[in-house]
Amino acid sequence: MAAITIIGKGNMGQAIGDVFTQGGNQVTYLGHTDPIENLGTIVVLAVPYSAAISIAKNNSAALADKIVIDITNPLNFDTWDSLVVPADSSAAAEIAALLPDSQIVKAFNTTFAGTLKSRQVVGVKTTVMAASDNADAKKTLAAALADSGVNFIDAGSLKRAREMESMGFLQMTIAASEQIGWTGGFGVLK
Amino acid sequence: MAAITIIGKGNMGQAIGDVFTQGGNQVTYLGHTDPIENLGTIVVLAVPYSAAISIAKNNSAALADKIVIDITNPLNFDTWDSLVVPADSSAAAEIAALLPDSQIVKAFNTTFAGTLKSRQVVGVKTTVMAASDNADAKKTLAAALADSGVNFIDAGSLKRAREMESMGFLQMTIAASEQIGWTGGFGVLK
Repeated sequence: MAAITIIGKGNMGQAIGDVFTQGGNQVTYLGHTDPIENLGTIVVLAVPYSAAISIAKNNSAALADKIVIDITNPLNFDTWDSLVVPADSSAAAEIAALLPDSQIVKAFNTTFAGTLKSRQVVGVKTTVMAASDNADAKKTLAAALADSGVNFIDAGSLKRAREMESMGFLQMTIAASEQIGWTGGFGVLK
Repeated sequence: MAAITIIGKGNMGQAIGDVFTQGGNQVTYLGHTDPIENLGTIVVLAVPYSAAISIAKNNSAALADKIVIDITNPLNFDTWDSLVVPADSSAAAEIAALLPDSQIVKAFNTTFAGTLKSRQVVGVKTTVMAASDNADAKKTLAAALADSGVNFIDAGSLKRAREMESMGFLQMTIAASEQIGWTGGFGVLK
């Protein structure tokens, strides 16, 4: 059981909260303009990339020693043709640079809200992948998800956030082109 | 029906040939040191990235006007921690720069040989994604795959090869860490 604070009450924040609640964790929400205080062990930044950067910039002390989960897909939403982060970086790396005393984990960006809520990608159990340089943070996240109805995969170091964000981006573009539904996408099969 | 030349007789070349043969196409093979001649409409570079670059460098005239399919995942196989192409580029873009008169398509790099051969990713029909700046080339490839036992998804312009290569890389790392099998991986669910 972990105490989890989700910043952001949109589709993704709610779906992630639902998953963690089923996992037996204590979930509380903050709106993205609320003061960042009374935080749990795990803090999920369930907000768009620009808002996540803003929160990180302004709250490094409050977020120190927390497991901070970045779920963003930092698309250029004007063009849907690139990411707004440098090509050799990732949203997670940019956020990590602003929060040197936090344990940054990239997760939940390769799962649509619909597949988190339903726990399935068209019949295939939903898998949450997580990348982090902190092995203990990944273990804590995996434990919090153990009874939540989703599978967990360790995607490696935080460097792999770049690949996860590419995958999230690609998944969004093929959904936007209506070749898959927003209840579908990439399933992970063992 | 298309005439298809596959350069490379390894696991991937054989699996791709099997798929195209079921699709009713005429498939011939060249070893990667054979002269690049008597080519079909579609040429699959089923060789490692460095060999694909070498073939492209030395055979731009023979490959002119051909649909050239790049299937590579350009990993640094010493470290398994990065790709050897520039971060803002892709193997497909590097090959395309060497073959200005060919129609370059990125495809087959997100499917392991095992999932092409079996046509399934642990029970989910295998999907071939294809990225290219040439819409006709993608249509020709889609038609060649129509009766082959795999699904086809248009992944957009050749720029998306970067994301496909990231996805291929990530899939290989989670297979190498034995969290999925080489007969599993990322299924595409609609």
